[in-house]
Amino acid sequence: MNGINGHDADISDFSHAKGQHFLIEAFKVIFEEAICKATDVNEKVCDWHDPEQLEELLDLELRDSGESHDQLLSRVRDVAKYSVKTNHPRFFNQLFSGLDYHALAGRLLSETLNTSQYTYEVAPVFVLMEHVVLTKLISMVGWPSGDGLFCPGGSMSNMVAMNVARYHAFPQMKQQGLWALPRLAVFTSQECHYSVMKAAAFLGIGTDNVFHVKTDQSGSMDPQDLEVKIMLARSQGAVPFFVTATSGTTIRGAFDPLETIADICEKHCLWMHVDAAHGGSVLFSKKHKHLVKGIERANSVTWNQHKMLTTGLQCSAFLVRDTANLLQKCHCASATYLFQQDKFYDMSLDTGDKTIQCGRKVDCLKLWLMWKAVGTKGLAERVERALSLTRYLAEAIKKREGFQLLSEPTFVNTCFWYIPPSLRGKENSADYQDRLSKVAPTIKEQMVKEGTMMVGYQPLNGQVNFFRMIVISPQTSQRDMDFCLDEIERLGKDL
Amino acid sequence: MNGINGHDADISDFSHAKGQHFLIEAFKVIFEEAICKATDVNEKVCDWHDPEQLEELLDLELRDSGESHDQLLSRVRDVAKYSVKTNHPRFFNQLFSGLDYHALAGRLLSETLNTSQYTYEVAPVFVLMEHVVLTKLISMVGWPSGDGLFCPGGSMSNMVAMNVARYHAFPQMKQQGLWALPRLAVFTSQECHYSVMKAAAFLGIGTDNVFHVKTDQSGSMDPQDLEVKIMLARSQGAVPFFVTATSGTTIRGAFDPLETIADICEKHCLWMHVDAAHGGSVLFSKKHKHLVKGIERANSVTWNQHKMLTTGLQCSAFLVRDTANLLQKCHCASATYLFQQDKFYDMSLDTGDKTIQCGRKVDCLKLWLMWKAVGTKGLAERVERALSLTRYLAEAIKKREGFQLLSEPTFVNTCFWYIPPSLRGKENSADYQDRLSKVAPTIKEQMVKEGTMMVGYQPLNGQVNFFRMIVISPQTSQRDMDFCLDEIERLGKDL
Ligand SMILES: Cc1ncc(COP(=O)(O)O)c(C=O)c1O
Ligand SMILES: Cc1ncc(COP(=O)(O)O)c(C=O)c1O
Repeated sequence: MNGINGHDADISDFSHAKGQHFLIEAFKVIFEEAICKATDVNEKVCDWHDPEQLEELLDLELRDSGESHDQLLSRVRDVAKYSVKTNHPRFFNQLFSGLDYHALAGRLLSETLNTSQYTYEVAPVFVLMEHVVLTKLISMVGWPSGDGLFCPGGSMSNMVAMNVARYHAFPQMKQQGLWALPRLAVFTSQECHYSVMKAAAFLGIGTDNVFHVKTDQSGSMDPQDLEVKIMLARSQGAVPFFVTATSGTTIRGAFDPLETIADICEKHCLWMHVDAAHGGSVLFSKKHKHLVKGIERANSVTWNQHKMLTTGLQCSAFLVRDTANLLQKCHCASATYLFQQDKFYDMSLDTGDKTIQCGRKVDCLKLWLMWKAVGTKGLAERVERALSLTRYLAEAIKKREGFQLLSEPTFVNTCFWYIPPSLRGKENSADYQDRLSKVAPTIKEQMVKEGTMMVGYQPLNGQVNFFRMIVISPQTSQRDMDFCLDEIERLGKDL
Repeated sequence: MNGINGHDADISDFSHAKGQHFLIEAFKVIFEEAICKATDVNEKVCDWHDPEQLEELLDLELRDSGESHDQLLSRVRDVAKYSVKTNHPRFFNQLFSGLDYHALAGRLLSETLNTSQYTYEVAPVFVLMEHVVLTKLISMVGWPSGDGLFCPGGSMSNMVAMNVARYHAFPQMKQQGLWALPRLAVFTSQECHYSVMKAAAFLGIGTDNVFHVKTDQSGSMDPQDLEVKIMLARSQGAVPFFVTATSGTTIRGAFDPLETIADICEKHCLWMHVDAAHGGSVLFSKKHKHLVKGIERANSVTWNQHKMLTTGLQCSAFLVRDTANLLQKCHCASATYLFQQDKFYDMSLDTGDKTIQCGRKVDCLKLWLMWKAVGTKGLAERVERALSLTRYLAEAIKKREGFQLLSEPTFVNTCFWYIPPSLRGKENSADYQDRLSKVAPTIKEQMVKEGTMMVGYQPLNGQVNFFRMIVISPQTSQRDMDFCLDEIERLGKDL
């Protein structure tokens, strides 16, 4: 550790010694606040403040002059203190939660190395690593080979899927744009993730050209209605080209029937994409992988490891069952300053032109290191543990008075209403639905303000606000499930 | 630190104590290898290995069983060891380099907190912080107000710009797709970043509909030719809607004449976007901000803080001079599970629906913490230091025999040829260009294999391969500039 790194002080006054000292002290604070306290079940999940209050507490303004070491350290502490602890065992609010220490170590290393995943030249380790990880995921999907890349989130992966499918069907679109093509039609279920709509809008296809296929009672796509919608689109003069099936829907965790959908896609020559952002990780489990039976017949798959596998944001694999360099052809722009064709190594290692990005963060390392740490078996156990904990929760809900499941959970999403005593037995009164719809938001407000736990809620298909509890973290237990139900009861019993 | 976090061991066998121990040990390794060694001028920038060799060294394969603590630590060490040290004072290969310790502390904290930047509910601190940072950037651009968000890279910011402009001109496209619109035309310079092409392809506009405006000798857009190209597009029946001017081109660091371009955009009612991914940071410097004079007349701006400001990947601000909620209208999908309309706080704080993403990493903290640490003044000094170091380099090149500038640098990009003694005075021989084109790649190969430094090269507009050296890192000095030229001479003198 040389203070000025072998340079004369008058040339560069940048002090490594001071910087390194700060970093070490900051890491101690991060460790205490954002790891030890954040994962401690006896601490709060969040320390709620109104925006005005929080603004005052934080003093966010950026000024001309810098601050002292101590001031900066207390800023690190405050940011941690007032942030929501997604690593907390009682954070069930999103499709990610929990802390994997090895994945976190991988993230810290990626951040420190700070390179971009585009060429072997600047990311030799990560070009090879991404390939190994993607190849492993591809084999788990059940394809003999394929291609892929990590995208900044599942929404982007879904967009990329739509674009690749479009290019595959109409390669001229890359140059000529959509004006050279007939009106295209996209199919997905009513309970798909909203990124399908965002993709259609962004890619110039338009949300009107997304046909929403009905779902059954459990939230899975009704394949008969898919056929109906394909006919409908055709009758309107649109050209169907793309179906997104969902494996693990966002709200209910439902799985679309992939085999039947694959039959329909084959019959109509449509690109079959599986949005397994949430549910893809069941591929680890012998016991549960039947949920995605038929996924190997898909043309492409989105699979977020930052959800179920707790790698940390972001880690979303886009996988494609193609071996003819489709990704590259679809996305390449052949920049000569990055992808020189006269390099001294195999240029196919410069994978960056397969993406729509230029600089791209290294997303593979966190997953790789975690996988090395616990092995495929360890990851399988975690998936199974999460599903069995969800089972436990569902059974507990069934046993409790005043709790009602929306439908049996098939995955790690448990959707349920809490019905306060004042509403029980009043199902037929005129204002029942209206009053019930206010229960979850009110309880949510209380839990957040007290900071005891976090669980999401939303309405769906005309059904009023219900809780959606997501069990993913390897650090949660049956005790946390029971706590959660007790807490909802405590907060809601007088409503 | 409680080993099982207050849970019975039989319920969750997840050990916090073991995990935390690993994390602390891993951080030590990261600190040594990826910080101390990586920034030490006496160590190598890269430790080159052929892919086959490196694969063997790394043993990347993912297996059924996990590995031991010690094995995993040595994996952390190896990943660091064999990775390119972009923090090294002699890494001049990309538009990012250098290590800011406060920004890194911010990155480590973001990674540890692992939340998603979409709602106040799960990211209270970061929703407020992003707003403050963006507001500050907006005021630096010179707008009284505006809107914005951080995107996963400048390419995405440029895509978002194109989509927002399109929506602004033709809001019906979101629902109806491009078929409801006339053929659109986009304008940018020949030396623009390739993300403009990628955006046109991805958004369904098509690369044929991107009109490339000529550049002058220094690489700036020729505004007269912009007018010509607008007419050309119209004469072909296309509808011009979008101009991307570049402030700081990727290869030469040129700045397009924004005032004149703004006049033309106003005249023709076109959306003016400024891709200041690379050059935007001159806004910090009183001395150099004239380079982006007129930027305040743009409708939108891309500005990457992960380039010139060394925040670390990724930090790219997309800014828009709009106060009518255009971003939200253009991108929203109103997911009820995330953006509930019956929340107990001001729902305008849930900014996530402004983006095309769903989960979004927190990119503001690293910039904010660095800014707090050195102040606006400190950042201004860094920008000025980088430009004056570039000046030093350019002057040194002019003084050296065998070195030839492509053009005078205006920013931090220095483009030059090294002409080995065997080629000097042979400018008129038939194979001169051909032989010269091989010089940079050969020297590059040598420097990478020896690991002494990293500098990029590429051809441009019929000019054969030249070096492009980017001076950004606050940790480089004049000594490093001299070293670089000496080294090129050493490696190339016998070619
Ligand atoms: C089914 C599904 N697909 C895609 C996504 C989008 O993933 P991301 O948040 O990584 O963009 C989600 C996110 O919740 C999802 O549930
Ligand atoms: C002028 C310009 N715009 C945009 C970009 C893209 O930025 P990113 O790599 O963050 O996608 C670059 C990257 O080099 C650039 O030089």
